[in-house]
Formats: sequence, C-alpha cells, structure tokens
Amino acid sequence: MSTSAKPSLFTCVSPALLHLYDVKDAIVVVIDVFRATSTIAAALYNGAEKIIPVDSVQGAIELGEELGAITAGERDGKIAEGLQHGNSPLEYPREFIAGKTLVLTTTNGTRLLHMALKNGATEVITGSFANLSAVCDHLLKSGKNVVLGCAAWKDRVNMEDTLFAGAVVSRLRQHYQVFCDASLGAETLYSHARIDTWNFVKKTTHYHRLSAYGLEKDMQWCISADIANVLPVYRDGALVVHS
Amino acid sequence: MSTSAKPSLFTCVSPALLHLYDVKDAIVVVIDVFRATSTIAAALYNGAEKIIPVDSVQGAIELGEELGAITAGERDGKIAEGLQHGNSPLEYPREFIAGKTLVLTTTNGTRLLHMALKNGATEVITGSFANLSAVCDHLLKSGKNVVLGCAAWKDRVNMEDTLFAGAVVSRLRQHYQVFCDASLGAETLYSHARIDTWNFVKKTTHYHRLSAYGLEKDMQWCISADIANVLPVYRDGALVVHS
Repeated sequence: MSTSAKPSLFTCVSPALLHLYDVKDAIVVVIDVFRATSTIAAALYNGAEKIIPVDSVQGAIELGEELGAITAGERDGKIAEGLQHGNSPLEYPREFIAGKTLVLTTTNGTRLLHMALKNGATEVITGSFANLSAVCDHLLKSGKNVVLGCAAWKDRVNMEDTLFAGAVVSRLRQHYQVFCDASLGAETLYSHARIDTWNFVKKTTHYHRLSAYGLEKDMQWCISADIANVLPVYRDGALVVHS
Repeated sequence: MSTSAKPSLFTCVSPALLHLYDVKDAIVVVIDVFRATSTIAAALYNGAEKIIPVDSVQGAIELGEELGAITAGERDGKIAEGLQHGNSPLEYPREFIAGKTLVLTTTNGTRLLHMALKNGATEVITGSFANLSAVCDHLLKSGKNVVLGCAAWKDRVNMEDTLFAGAVVSRLRQHYQVFCDASLGAETLYSHARIDTWNFVKKTTHYHRLSAYGLEKDMQWCISADIANVLPVYRDGALVVHS
C-alpha cells in the first residue's frame, strides 16, 4: 500500500482548534481522560444501556426527570446541585449501572462531542486509557481518516488527553499518514511518560486540581489501559456500545 | 521567595489560543523558529537598525518604497513578487544589512505579534534558538509574567516553536510558577529532542515543507543556540535591539 493510500491521522489538542481539521470524512475520537470519557467507558463496560451527554446541569436534571434516568455530573470536583452522582468511573459498578440510562453532564468533553457532530464528523467515539485497545482496533478496522480530539481544560492544552492521543498514535502510526506535529508531540510525550505514567501525571495541572479533592484513586484508574475495554459510539443522541 | 511570589510562565502553542492567556501584565515572546524570528535575530545581530514586520506583501512593498528600506518576505518558499529578499537568516550578513531598515512580511509570526500588542502585552520580544540566552536573561531580569507565544503553522501546533518554548521553560522553570501543561509538554519534548535536535526536526511537518525548497542549511542555522544572541524588542512600530 502506498503512503498516499493510507488514511490520515491528526491530533487536535484543544476544542478551540477543531475548526482547523476536516472532520467530515473522519472518525472523531473525543478524549477527556480526567474523567468524562473514562467514566463513559466504565459505565458502558459495566452494562449501562446508554449514556446521554448534556452540557448543562439544568439540562441533565430535566432530561433525567423526563427519562427516569440516573443523573450525574460534577462542578469543581463535587456532585453538582440537583444531580445524583459524580463523575468518577468508580461510582458505576455493574450492580449499580447495568441496564440503566445515565445522563451525564461534563463541560469540556460534552462540548467537544457536540462540536464534532456539528462539524459533520462521520462518526464520533470516545476514548480513554480504559478502552485504548477497543478504540485502536475500531479505527484500524474502519480504515477511515481519524481526528483525535482532546477535550483539554477550558480550551487550554492538557497533558492527560495529549498522552492518550499519543498512545493511539504510537499504535496506529504505521497504518496512517501522520503529517501532524501535534501527533508527533503526543507520541513523543507518551513514549516518555509510559515508563512511569503516574509520576509524570503528578506534574500535570489537572492532577493538582483533582488531588485537592482526594481523587488520586480515580486518576490511577483513568490511566490504566484496557480496564473497561468497550467502544462507546454516539448514535441517536446517546453513547452506546458499538456493535 | 515563596512560590506565590514568583511570576507566572505560560506556553501558548497556537495564536488561536492566545485569548486564553492574560498578556496584559506579561512579556510576550513571539516564536517563529522557521524562520521569521530567526531571521529577525540574524539581521539585528548583524547591525540592522530596525525591522518593521508587516502582514501583507502589498503592505511591505508600499512601506519599503516610502522608507527606502529593504523589503523581504516569502510565500510558499520563494521571494514574494515585488519584494527584494527572502526570509532566510543567511541572507542578512553584516556587510549587507548593517545600518539598514528591513521591512519583513511573514504570515504566522507577524500576525501573532500584532495580536499580542492588540491584547495589551506589556512588552513584545521575539525569540528563536539563535537568541535563546538573550531572551532568557531578559525575562529573568525583568521579573515579569511571561507568555511564550508560538506562531505555529496556520494555527496548527508546530514542533520547532514548541521546542524553543521548551528550551526557555527548562532554563527558567525554577524562577517561575509554571502551572501549565503546554509548558510541561514543551519542556519534556525539548529534553527529548535536544539529544539530537536535527534528527528530531526531520520528523516535523515544516522540515518537509522547507526541505522541498532546499532549505536544510537554513533550518540547521535556525536550531543552533545563541548564534545571533541579541534581544529584539518591539518599540514604536519596529523591532530593535533592546538597550
């Protein structure tokens, strides 16, 4: 296969840069490692029927009432007022979440997901270390162009999303045309951080925010590969397990 | 000195993210390693009186005629029509440029410089490997907040500007409060790339663009530290040597 026949792969390090990438013929991977897309993987892995991402607390309350669904979301590290649960993957074991619908509100991740849809992405899936292999296997199998979309932190680059993008790039590079310095950077950072990911993560801004809320255990879960290895795909307004 | 008393340092990896950073009380370092800010360092180091950055070829032609100045700028790797010189640091030896005014048009770098000024930056200086030490010394001496602004490539993250930001972060970190994953990433990438910078640069997108025009020698010059170690500062519409 010649180089030109390979699909393209780009890494978009912030939602504020998404407009620079052509997502119309691409699968967009929404990445929000701490913690939205990790929690999505956990809940679906543990049998949730579907997860509806909404961008406001009020929207989550209203939809939760309408559907009789579980509502979840945090603001500033605490369960948001009016919602029932938080944004921790550890809160969604099988015995609690199996068969249920979860209405989840997050800020950075949900916004990016809606932007990707609005920009006409062929397909939107979510990725995190918890489902690294499922994401890579699906992308490879599809043969489509890929945009790895980091949810970032209020549009600022964050390290944990970049590292996950780097993990994907390092697995897929040989099968894609990667003409993208953000992908090169992500891959290089991942190759550096993978030796001792936890100690590297401790240098990040989000570690400092979340550890102030006692969420070290959450973060350790969120950087563990393949512990909730399902593929969440957005269909008809909800994230469901790809089938 | 307590941590909170230290000035802040942020890295902005794309002009499209500059609005996220408060530049009002900060020195903004405009970084366009390939090749605007490298060429600026070269020309000033070799005695140019001043450099006037303009954002269009037409603007450069008109200003050049008005001032009787040397005009320079490239589009797609060639001297732009109507201008006299290119955007290579090697084109500006002392015997040619000393005492003269250079009107320089570049795309990414000039735009970022004007954005920083419009956003009210306290001071705008330009940085590149050629004047790495001059930049770091000035920042340290000033004690002001710092925003390292990468000119990037049409708003996409590029590696060479990120690497230079990383070189600055690695020199200054202990004197600043660095709560910024982009700075952590840049510093980590620089620590990786510095071992064999040239071979790492060969993996970047801009290397491929510029080497297609035979500009390897230019790029090698542009990643050499301190070979035109002056401090360009923007004053009254032009970049001059800081005094």
